[in-house]
Amino acid sequence: MTISKAQIKWVRSLQQKKFRDEAQLFVAEGDKCISELLPAFEVELLIVDGTRSTLHDVPCSAQRLVSAGETEIAQMSSLRTPQGSIAVFRQRPNSPCASQYADFILALDGVQDPGNLGTIIRTCDWFGVHQVVCSKDTADCYNPKVVQATMGALARVQVDYVDLPAWLEQQQMPVYGTLLDGRNIYWTGAIAERDRGIIVMGNEGNGISEAVRPLITHPLYIPSAESDRVESLNVAIATAVTLAEFRRPNNTNK
Amino acid sequence: MTISKAQIKWVRSLQQKKFRDEAQLFVAEGDKCISELLPAFEVELLIVDGTRSTLHDVPCSAQRLVSAGETEIAQMSSLRTPQGSIAVFRQRPNSPCASQYADFILALDGVQDPGNLGTIIRTCDWFGVHQVVCSKDTADCYNPKVVQATMGALARVQVDYVDLPAWLEQQQMPVYGTLLDGRNIYWTGAIAERDRGIIVMGNEGNGISEAVRPLITHPLYIPSAESDRVESLNVAIATAVTLAEFRRPNNTNK
Repeated sequence: MTISKAQIKWVRSLQQKKFRDEAQLFVAEGDKCISELLPAFEVELLIVDGTRSTLHDVPCSAQRLVSAGETEIAQMSSLRTPQGSIAVFRQRPNSPCASQYADFILALDGVQDPGNLGTIIRTCDWFGVHQVVCSKDTADCYNPKVVQATMGALARVQVDYVDLPAWLEQQQMPVYGTLLDGRNIYWTGAIAERDRGIIVMGNEGNGISEAVRPLITHPLYIPSAESDRVESLNVAIATAVTLAEFRRPNNTNK
Repeated sequence: MTISKAQIKWVRSLQQKKFRDEAQLFVAEGDKCISELLPAFEVELLIVDGTRSTLHDVPCSAQRLVSAGETEIAQMSSLRTPQGSIAVFRQRPNSPCASQYADFILALDGVQDPGNLGTIIRTCDWFGVHQVVCSKDTADCYNPKVVQATMGALARVQVDYVDLPAWLEQQQMPVYGTLLDGRNIYWTGAIAERDRGIIVMGNEGNGISEAVRPLITHPLYIPSAESDRVESLNVAIATAVTLAEFRRPNNTNK
Protein backbone atom coordinates (compact mmCIF):
# COMPACT_ATOMS: atom_id res chain seq x y z
CA MET A 1 0.00 0.00 0.00
CA THR A 2 1.14 3.52 -0.75
CA ILE A 3 1.04 6.18 1.93
CA SER A 4 -2.00 8.49 1.89
CA LYS A 5 -2.06 12.28 2.24
CA ALA A 6 -3.85 11.90 5.56
CA GLN A 7 -1.10 9.60 6.86
CA ILE A 8 1.62 12.06 5.82
CA LYS A 9 -0.18 14.83 7.71
CA TRP A 10 -0.61 12.58 10.75
CA VAL A 11 3.08 11.55 10.85
CA ARG A 12 4.10 15.21 10.53
CA SER A 13 1.82 16.15 13.43
CA LEU A 14 3.80 13.80 15.70
CA GLN A 15 6.74 16.22 15.55
CA GLN A 16 4.70 18.22 18.07
CA LYS A 17 4.65 17.09 21.70
CA LYS A 18 0.93 17.82 22.06
CA PHE A 19 0.02 15.27 19.37
CA ARG A 20 2.63 12.74 20.56
CA ASP A 21 1.22 12.88 24.09
CA GLU A 22 -2.38 12.54 22.90
CA ALA A 23 -1.65 9.55 20.68
CA GLN A 24 1.14 8.08 22.89
CA LEU A 25 3.21 7.61 19.74
CA PHE A 26 6.59 8.80 18.45
CA VAL A 27 8.61 8.79 15.24
CA ALA A 28 12.04 7.37 14.43
CA GLU A 29 13.90 7.64 11.13
CA GLY A 30 16.45 5.60 9.22
CA ASP A 31 16.99 1.84 9.00
CA LYS A 32 19.67 1.77 11.69
CA CYS A 33 17.76 3.68 14.34
CA ILE A 34 14.48 1.87 13.56
CA SER A 35 16.16 -1.56 13.70
CA GLU A 36 17.54 -0.80 17.17
CA LEU A 37 14.09 0.28 18.42
CA LEU A 38 12.09 -2.60 16.88
CA PRO A 39 12.77 -5.12 19.68
CA ALA A 40 11.58 -2.66 22.33
CA PHE A 41 8.66 -0.71 20.87
CA GLU A 42 5.42 -1.73 19.15
CA VAL A 43 5.19 -0.57 15.53
CA GLU A 44 2.12 1.49 14.64
CA LEU A 45 3.20 2.30 11.08
CA LEU A 46 6.34 1.54 9.09
CA ILE A 47 6.96 3.73 6.05
CA VAL A 48 9.54 2.45 3.62
CA ASP A 49 11.08 3.76 0.41
CA GLY A 50 11.96 0.41 -1.16
CA THR A 51 14.77 1.89 -3.23
CA ARG A 52 16.59 3.30 -0.19
CA SER A 53 15.68 0.98 2.69
CA THR A 54 16.14 -2.68 3.52
CA LEU A 55 13.40 -2.68 6.14
CA HIS A 56 10.66 -4.15 3.92
CA ASP A 57 11.26 -7.66 5.25
CA VAL A 58 10.67 -6.68 8.88
CA PRO A 59 8.05 -8.89 10.54
CA CYS A 60 5.16 -6.45 10.64
CA SER A 61 1.50 -6.94 9.66
CA ALA A 62 0.72 -5.84 6.09
CA GLN A 63 -1.69 -3.14 7.20
CA ARG A 64 1.06 -1.45 9.20
CA LEU A 65 3.52 -1.34 6.30
CA VAL A 66 3.24 1.37 3.64
CA SER A 67 5.53 2.50 0.87
CA ALA A 68 6.52 6.07 0.12
CA GLY A 69 8.77 7.89 -2.35
CA GLU A 70 11.57 10.33 -1.61
CA THR A 71 9.20 13.33 -1.82
CA GLU A 72 6.70 11.92 0.67
CA ILE A 73 9.47 10.91 3.10
CA ALA A 74 10.93 14.41 2.89
CA GLN A 75 7.51 15.87 3.75
CA MET A 76 7.39 13.85 6.98
CA SER A 77 11.05 13.96 7.99
CA SER A 78 12.54 16.10 10.71
CA LEU A 79 16.09 15.35 9.52
CA ARG A 80 18.21 17.65 7.40
CA THR A 81 19.04 14.63 5.22
CA PRO A 82 15.91 12.44 5.19
CA GLN A 83 16.59 8.72 5.01
CA GLY A 84 14.69 5.88 3.36
CA SER A 85 12.45 4.85 6.25
CA ILE A 86 10.24 6.29 8.99
CA ALA A 87 8.58 4.34 11.78
CA VAL A 88 5.76 5.39 14.08
CA PHE A 89 6.19 3.57 17.39
CA ARG A 90 3.99 3.32 20.46
CA GLN A 91 5.45 5.03 23.55
CA ARG A 92 6.19 2.95 26.63
CA PRO A 93 3.90 3.62 29.59
CA ASN A 94 5.36 5.79 32.35
CA SER A 95 6.41 3.39 35.16
CA PRO A 96 8.98 4.96 37.47
CA CYS A 97 8.31 2.33 40.17
CA ALA A 98 10.62 -0.06 38.30
CA SER A 99 13.43 1.66 40.21
CA GLN A 100 13.57 -1.20 42.67
CA TYR A 101 15.35 -3.36 40.10
CA ALA A 102 18.04 -0.85 39.18
CA ASP A 103 21.47 -0.45 40.73
CA PHE A 104 21.94 3.03 39.34
CA ILE A 105 19.31 5.49 38.31
CA LEU A 106 20.03 8.76 36.58
CA ALA A 107 17.63 11.56 37.56
CA LEU A 108 17.37 14.62 35.30
CA ASP A 109 16.19 17.87 36.85
CA GLY A 110 15.12 20.20 34.04
CA VAL A 111 17.50 19.25 31.20
CA GLN A 112 16.17 21.38 28.33
CA ASP A 113 18.15 20.62 25.20
CA PRO A 114 16.94 17.61 23.17
CA GLY A 115 20.47 16.98 21.87
CA ASN A 116 21.79 16.83 25.43
CA LEU A 117 18.99 14.49 26.54
CA GLY A 118 19.61 12.18 23.57
CA THR A 119 23.34 12.06 24.23
CA ILE A 120 22.71 11.41 27.93
CA ILE A 121 20.44 8.44 27.15
CA ARG A 122 23.05 7.05 24.73
CA THR A 123 25.75 7.48 27.39
CA CYS A 124 23.60 5.73 30.03
CA ASP A 125 23.23 2.76 27.70
CA TRP A 126 27.01 2.59 27.31
CA PHE A 127 27.66 2.70 31.05
CA GLY A 128 24.90 0.20 31.85
CA VAL A 129 22.45 2.60 33.49
CA HIS A 130 19.04 1.42 32.34
CA GLN A 131 16.73 3.83 34.07
CA VAL A 132 16.42 7.58 33.70
CA VAL A 133 13.86 9.43 35.82
CA CYS A 134 13.07 12.97 34.63
CA SER A 135 11.38 15.97 36.20
CA LYS A 136 8.28 17.07 34.30
CA ASP A 137 10.14 20.09 32.86
CA THR A 138 12.88 17.94 31.29
CA ALA A 139 12.80 17.67 27.47
CA ASP A 140 10.53 14.98 25.99
CA CYS A 141 12.46 11.78 25.30
CA TYR A 142 10.17 11.15 22.31
CA ASN A 143 11.11 14.44 20.64
CA PRO A 144 12.50 13.47 17.20
CA LYS A 145 15.86 15.11 17.97
CA VAL A 146 16.19 13.08 21.15
CA VAL A 147 15.20 9.83 19.44
CA GLN A 148 17.83 10.33 16.71
CA ALA A 149 20.57 11.42 19.15
CA THR A 150 20.07 8.30 21.30
CA MET A 151 21.17 6.18 18.31
CA GLY A 152 18.72 3.47 19.37
CA ALA A 153 19.65 3.48 23.06
CA LEU A 154 16.05 4.42 23.88
CA ALA A 155 15.31 0.72 23.32
CA ARG A 156 17.45 -0.25 26.31
CA VAL A 157 17.00 2.67 28.69
CA GLN A 158 13.65 3.24 30.41
CA VAL A 159 12.79 6.95 30.65
CA ASP A 160 10.01 8.13 32.99
CA TYR A 161 8.62 11.52 33.97
CA VAL A 162 7.75 12.20 37.61
CA ASP A 163 7.33 14.90 40.23
CA LEU A 164 11.07 14.67 40.95
CA PRO A 165 11.28 16.04 44.54
CA ALA A 166 8.36 13.82 45.65
CA TRP A 167 9.85 10.79 43.88
CA LEU A 168 13.32 11.34 45.39
CA GLU A 169 11.86 11.56 48.89
CA GLN A 170 10.50 8.03 48.57
CA GLN A 171 13.80 6.44 47.54
CA GLN A 172 16.00 4.48 49.94
CA MET A 173 19.30 5.00 48.11
CA PRO A 174 22.14 7.51 48.30
CA VAL A 175 21.29 10.55 46.16
CA TYR A 176 24.33 12.05 44.38
CA GLY A 177 24.33 15.36 42.62
CA THR A 178 26.92 17.82 41.32
CA LEU A 179 26.81 21.02 43.37
CA LEU A 180 29.34 23.85 43.55
CA ASP A 181 30.07 23.04 47.21
CA GLY A 182 30.15 19.26 46.66
CA ARG A 183 32.99 16.89 47.45
CA ASN A 184 35.71 16.23 44.90
CA ILE A 185 34.42 13.25 42.92
CA TYR A 186 37.96 11.75 42.91
CA TRP A 187 38.17 11.64 46.69
CA THR A 188 37.69 8.03 47.75
CA GLY A 189 35.15 9.04 50.39
CA ALA A 190 32.94 11.02 47.99
CA ILE A 191 31.13 7.98 46.65
CA ALA A 192 29.46 6.00 49.46
CA GLU A 193 28.66 2.82 47.55
CA ARG A 194 29.89 2.15 44.05
CA ASP A 195 27.14 -0.29 43.22
CA ARG A 196 23.90 1.62 43.76
CA GLY A 197 22.51 5.11 43.96
CA ILE A 198 20.65 7.87 42.22
CA ILE A 199 22.70 10.44 40.32
CA VAL A 200 20.96 13.79 39.77
CA MET A 201 22.00 16.11 36.95
CA GLY A 202 20.50 19.60 36.66
CA ASN A 203 19.43 22.18 34.13
CA GLU A 204 21.94 23.56 31.57
CA GLY A 205 21.87 27.09 32.94
CA ASN A 206 20.80 26.78 36.57
CA GLY A 207 21.96 23.35 37.69
CA ILE A 208 19.94 21.40 40.24
CA SER A 209 16.71 23.15 41.28
CA GLU A 210 16.05 24.58 44.75
CA ALA A 211 13.40 21.95 45.42
CA VAL A 212 15.79 19.07 44.68
CA ARG A 213 18.96 20.46 46.27
CA PRO A 214 18.08 19.55 49.91
CA LEU A 215 17.39 15.96 48.80
CA ILE A 216 20.99 15.42 47.62
CA THR A 217 22.56 13.24 50.32
CA HIS A 218 26.00 13.10 48.65
CA PRO A 219 27.00 16.34 46.91
CA LEU A 220 29.82 15.96 44.38
CA TYR A 221 31.80 18.24 42.14
CA ILE A 222 34.04 17.54 39.17
CA PRO A 223 37.24 19.55 39.64
CA SER A 224 38.56 21.59 36.74
CA ALA A 225 42.25 21.48 35.84
CA GLU A 226 42.06 25.27 35.93
CA SER A 227 41.72 26.66 39.43
CA ASP A 228 39.93 29.83 38.34
CA ARG A 229 37.25 28.12 36.30
CA VAL A 230 33.69 28.55 37.54
CA GLU A 231 31.91 27.82 34.28
CA SER A 232 30.17 24.49 34.29
CA LEU A 233 30.68 21.61 31.92
CA ASN A 234 27.98 20.80 29.37
CA VAL A 235 25.42 18.63 31.20
CA ALA A 236 25.88 15.60 28.93
CA ILE A 237 29.66 15.81 29.45
CA ALA A 238 29.27 16.13 33.23
CA THR A 239 26.94 13.11 33.20
CA ALA A 240 29.49 11.05 31.27
CA VAL A 241 32.40 11.99 33.54
CA THR A 242 30.29 11.15 36.61
CA LEU A 243 29.02 7.80 35.27
CA ALA A 244 32.55 6.88 34.13
CA GLU A 245 33.81 7.54 37.65
CA PHE A 246 31.12 5.37 39.26
CA ARG A 247 31.70 2.54 36.78
CA ARG A 248 35.49 2.84 36.81
CA PRO A 249 37.35 -0.23 38.07
CA ASN A 250 40.06 0.71 40.57
CA ASN A 251 42.61 -1.12 38.54
CA THR A 252 42.44 -3.65 35.80
CA ASN A 253 44.92 -6.19 34.52
CA LYS A 254 44.07 -6.05 30.85
CA MET B 1 26.02 55.22 14.72
CA THR B 2 23.22 52.99 13.51
CA ILE B 3 23.98 49.87 11.52
CA SER B 4 23.70 50.12 7.73
CA LYS B 5 21.99 47.72 5.32
CA ALA B 6 25.40 46.90 3.83
CA GLN B 7 26.75 45.98 7.27
CA ILE B 8 23.77 43.72 7.98
CA LYS B 9 24.39 41.91 4.69
CA TRP B 10 28.11 41.62 5.45
CA VAL B 11 27.56 40.18 8.95
CA ARG B 12 25.06 37.68 7.53
CA SER B 13 27.59 36.60 4.90
CA LEU B 14 29.98 35.55 7.68
CA GLN B 15 27.67 32.65 8.50
CA GLN B 16 29.27 31.04 5.44
CA LYS B 17 32.73 29.53 5.72
CA LYS B 18 33.82 30.89 2.35
CA PHE B 19 33.32 34.49 3.46
CA ARG B 20 34.75 33.86 6.94
CA ASP B 21 37.92 32.40 5.40
CA GLU B 22 38.31 35.25 2.92
CA ALA B 23 37.90 37.96 5.54
CA GLN B 24 39.54 35.99 8.41
CA LEU B 25 36.64 37.04 10.63
CA PHE B 26 33.92 35.33 12.67
CA VAL B 27 30.74 36.19 14.54
CA ALA B 28 29.77 35.67 18.19
CA GLU B 29 26.43 36.51 19.80
CA GLY B 30 25.20 37.51 23.23
CA ASP B 31 26.82 39.56 26.00
CA LYS B 32 28.15 36.55 27.89
CA CYS B 33 29.84 34.83 24.95
CA ILE B 34 31.21 38.12 23.56
CA SER B 35 32.60 39.16 26.97
CA GLU B 36 34.51 35.88 27.23
CA LEU B 37 36.02 36.32 23.76
CA LEU B 38 36.94 40.02 24.11
CA PRO B 39 40.27 39.45 25.92
CA ALA B 40 41.45 37.03 23.22
CA PHE B 41 40.18 38.34 19.88
CA GLU B 42 40.38 41.71 18.15
CA VAL B 43 36.97 43.35 17.60
CA GLU B 44 36.14 44.32 14.03
CA LEU B 45 32.57 45.43 14.72
CA LEU B 46 30.40 45.40 17.84
CA ILE B 47 26.65 45.62 17.26
CA VAL B 48 24.59 46.47 20.31
CA ASP B 49 20.88 46.82 21.03
CA GLY B 50 21.13 49.27 23.94
CA THR B 51 17.83 48.12 25.42
CA ARG B 52 18.91 44.47 25.68
CA SER B 53 22.70 44.59 26.10
CA THR B 54 25.14 45.98 28.64
CA LEU B 55 28.09 45.87 26.24
CA HIS B 56 27.95 49.55 25.21
CA ASP B 57 30.65 50.48 27.71
CA VAL B 58 33.20 48.01 26.29
CA PRO B 59 36.51 49.74 25.44
CA CYS B 60 36.21 49.81 21.66
CA SER B 61 36.84 52.65 19.20
CA ALA B 62 33.69 54.57 18.27
CA GLN B 63 33.90 53.61 14.62
CA ARG B 64 33.73 49.91 15.55
CA LEU B 65 30.60 50.30 17.67
CA VAL B 66 27.17 50.46 16.04
CA SER B 67 23.65 50.25 17.41
CA ALA B 68 20.88 48.06 16.06
CA GLY B 69 17.26 47.28 16.95
CA GLU B 70 15.67 43.92 17.56
CA THR B 71 14.68 43.54 13.89
CA GLU B 72 18.18 44.20 12.54
CA ILE B 73 19.76 41.85 15.10
CA ALA B 74 17.30 39.11 14.11
CA GLN B 75 18.28 39.57 10.45
CA MET B 76 21.94 38.87 11.29
CA SER B 77 21.52 36.24 13.98
CA SER B 78 22.10 32.51 13.58
CA LEU B 79 20.41 31.79 16.93
CA ARG B 80 16.85 30.61 17.38
CA THR B 81 16.46 33.25 20.09
CA PRO B 82 18.59 36.22 19.01
CA GLN B 83 20.18 38.15 21.84
CA GLY B 84 20.97 41.85 22.25
CA SER B 85 24.50 41.90 20.85
CA ILE B 86 26.59 40.57 17.98
CA ALA B 87 30.36 40.91 17.60
CA VAL B 88 32.51 40.42 14.53
CA PHE B 89 35.95 39.26 15.66
CA ARG B 90 39.21 38.72 13.81
CA GLN B 91 40.30 35.04 13.60
CA ARG B 92 43.58 34.00 15.16
CA PRO B 93 46.29 33.03 12.68
CA ASN B 94 46.88 29.29 12.22
CA SER B 95 50.01 28.42 14.24
CA PRO B 96 50.19 24.73 15.07
CA CYS B 97 53.91 24.97 15.91
CA ALA B 98 52.99 26.26 19.37
CA SER B 99 52.69 22.59 20.32
CA GLN B 100 56.11 22.65 21.94
CA TYR B 101 54.66 24.53 24.91
CA ALA B 102 51.75 22.20 25.56
CA ASP B 103 51.64 19.20 27.85
CA PHE B 104 48.56 17.76 26.22
CA ILE B 105 47.28 18.35 22.74
CA LEU B 106 43.97 17.10 21.46
CA ALA B 107 44.02 16.14 17.76
CA LEU B 108 40.70 15.88 15.90
CA ASP B 109 40.58 13.66 12.83
CA GLY B 110 37.48 14.57 10.82
CA VAL B 111 35.00 15.59 13.54
CA GLN B 112 32.02 16.81 11.48
CA ASP B 113 29.32 18.09 13.79
CA PRO B 114 29.72 21.75 14.89
CA GLY B 115 27.90 21.04 18.16
CA ASN B 116 30.36 18.25 18.95
CA LEU B 117 33.37 20.43 18.09
CA GLY B 118 32.06 23.27 20.27
CA THR B 119 31.45 20.94 23.21
CA ILE B 120 34.92 19.40 22.75
CA ILE B 121 36.60 22.83 22.87
CA ARG B 122 34.60 23.73 25.99
CA THR B 123 35.60 20.42 27.60
CA CYS B 124 39.30 20.97 26.74
CA ASP B 125 39.16 24.34 28.48
CA TRP B 126 37.73 22.66 31.61
CA PHE B 127 40.41 19.96 31.67
CA GLY B 128 43.24 22.41 30.97
CA VAL B 129 44.03 21.31 27.42
CA HIS B 130 44.85 24.53 25.59
CA GLN B 131 45.67 23.29 22.14
CA VAL B 132 43.48 21.48 19.63
CA VAL B 133 44.98 20.48 16.29
CA CYS B 134 42.43 19.55 13.61
CA SER B 135 42.62 17.73 10.29
CA LYS B 136 41.52 19.90 7.37
CA ASP B 137 38.19 18.02 7.11
CA THR B 138 37.22 18.78 10.72
CA ALA B 139 34.39 21.30 11.19
CA ASP B 140 35.37 25.00 11.21
CA CYS B 141 35.90 26.26 14.75
CA TYR B 142 34.61 29.68 13.64
CA ASN B 143 31.25 28.25 12.50
CA PRO B 144 28.61 30.18 14.52
CA LYS B 145 27.28 26.94 16.08
CA VAL B 146 30.78 26.01 17.27
CA VAL B 147 31.44 29.48 18.66
CA GLN B 148 28.20 29.47 20.67
CA ALA B 149 28.69 25.88 21.91
CA THR B 150 32.18 26.67 23.23
CA MET B 151 30.58 29.17 25.67
CA GLY B 152 33.64 31.40 25.31
CA ALA B 153 36.25 28.64 25.69
CA LEU B 154 37.54 29.53 22.22
CA ALA B 155 39.29 32.42 23.96
CA ARG B 156 41.47 30.04 25.94
CA VAL B 157 41.95 27.11 23.57
CA GLN B 158 44.07 27.52 20.44
CA VAL B 159 42.56 25.65 17.47
CA ASP B 160 44.65 25.02 14.35
CA TYR B 161 44.09 23.17 11.07
CA VAL B 162 46.86 21.01 9.63
CA ASP B 163 47.64 18.06 7.40
CA LEU B 164 47.12 15.75 10.38
CA PRO B 165 49.16 12.65 9.37
CA ALA B 166 52.14 14.84 8.34
CA TRP B 167 51.89 16.89 11.53
CA LEU B 168 51.66 13.80 13.77
CA GLU B 169 54.75 12.32 12.16
CA GLN B 170 56.81 15.31 13.29
CA GLN B 171 55.78 15.10 16.96
CA GLN B 172 58.00 13.60 19.67
CA MET B 173 55.26 12.64 22.11
CA PRO B 174 53.15 9.54 22.77
CA VAL B 175 50.13 9.53 20.44
CA TYR B 176 46.98 8.12 22.07
CA GLY B 177 43.83 7.25 20.21
CA THR B 178 40.69 5.23 20.87
CA LEU B 179 40.64 2.17 18.62
CA LEU B 180 38.47 -0.95 18.85
CA ASP B 181 41.55 -3.09 19.59
CA GLY B 182 43.09 -0.60 22.01
CA ARG B 183 44.07 -1.21 25.61
CA ASN B 184 41.53 -0.71 28.39
CA ILE B 185 41.98 2.92 29.39
CA TYR B 186 41.63 1.92 33.07
CA TRP B 187 44.60 -0.45 32.91
CA THR B 188 47.48 1.28 34.67
CA GLY B 189 49.84 0.44 31.80
CA ALA B 190 47.62 1.93 29.11
CA ILE B 191 48.76 5.48 29.68
CA ALA B 192 52.54 5.82 29.30
CA GLU B 193 52.99 9.26 30.82
CA ARG B 194 50.21 11.16 32.53
CA ASP B 195 51.75 14.56 31.96
CA ARG B 196 52.16 14.85 28.20
CA GLY B 197 50.92 13.43 24.95
CA ILE B 198 48.67 13.86 21.96
CA ILE B 199 45.16 12.42 22.18
CA VAL B 200 43.52 11.72 18.81
CA MET B 201 39.72 11.54 18.46
CA GLY B 202 38.13 10.44 15.17
CA ASN B 203 35.12 11.07 12.98
CA GLU B 204 31.58 10.48 14.36
CA GLY B 205 30.82 7.61 12.00
CA ASN B 206 34.17 6.15 11.02
CA GLY B 207 36.49 6.87 13.91
CA ILE B 208 40.17 7.51 13.28
CA SER B 209 41.09 7.58 9.57
CA GLU B 210 43.27 4.97 7.85
CA ALA B 211 46.05 7.51 7.33
CA VAL B 212 46.23 8.38 11.02
CA ARG B 213 45.73 4.90 12.52
CA PRO B 214 49.34 3.68 12.05
CA LEU B 215 50.59 6.83 13.82
CA ILE B 216 48.81 5.95 17.08
CA THR B 217 51.59 4.73 19.39
CA HIS B 218 49.23 4.00 22.34
CA PRO B 219 45.84 2.64 21.29
CA LEU B 220 43.16 2.91 23.99
CA TYR B 221 39.54 1.90 24.35
CA ILE B 222 36.88 2.92 26.83
CA PRO B 223 35.15 -0.25 28.05
CA SER B 224 31.36 -0.37 28.13
CA ALA B 225 29.53 -1.71 31.17
CA GLU B 226 27.65 -3.90 28.68
CA SER B 227 29.78 -6.67 27.24
CA ASP B 228 27.81 -6.89 23.98
CA ARG B 229 27.99 -3.23 23.13
CA VAL B 230 29.85 -2.35 19.95
CA GLU B 231 28.25 1.02 19.30
CA SER B 232 30.59 3.88 19.99
CA LEU B 233 30.08 6.75 22.38
CA ASN B 234 29.37 10.21 21.00
CA VAL B 235 32.79 11.72 20.15
CA ALA B 236 32.46 14.64 22.57
CA ILE B 237 31.54 12.20 25.36
CA ALA B 238 34.48 9.90 24.49
CA THR B 239 36.81 12.93 24.53
CA ALA B 240 35.56 13.96 27.97
CA VAL B 241 35.91 10.47 29.45
CA THR B 242 39.45 10.21 28.04
CA LEU B 243 40.57 13.67 29.22
CA ALA B 244 39.03 13.03 32.66
CA GLU B 245 41.04 9.80 32.91
CA PHE B 246 44.32 11.54 31.98
CA ARG B 247 43.67 14.39 34.40
CA ARG B 248 42.34 12.19 37.18
CA PRO B 249 44.39 12.23 40.40
CA ASN B 250 44.97 8.70 41.68
CA ASN B 251 43.54 9.63 45.01
CA THR B 252 42.81 12.89 46.68
CA ASN B 253 42.37 13.89 50.30
CA LYS B 254 39.68 16.50 49.89
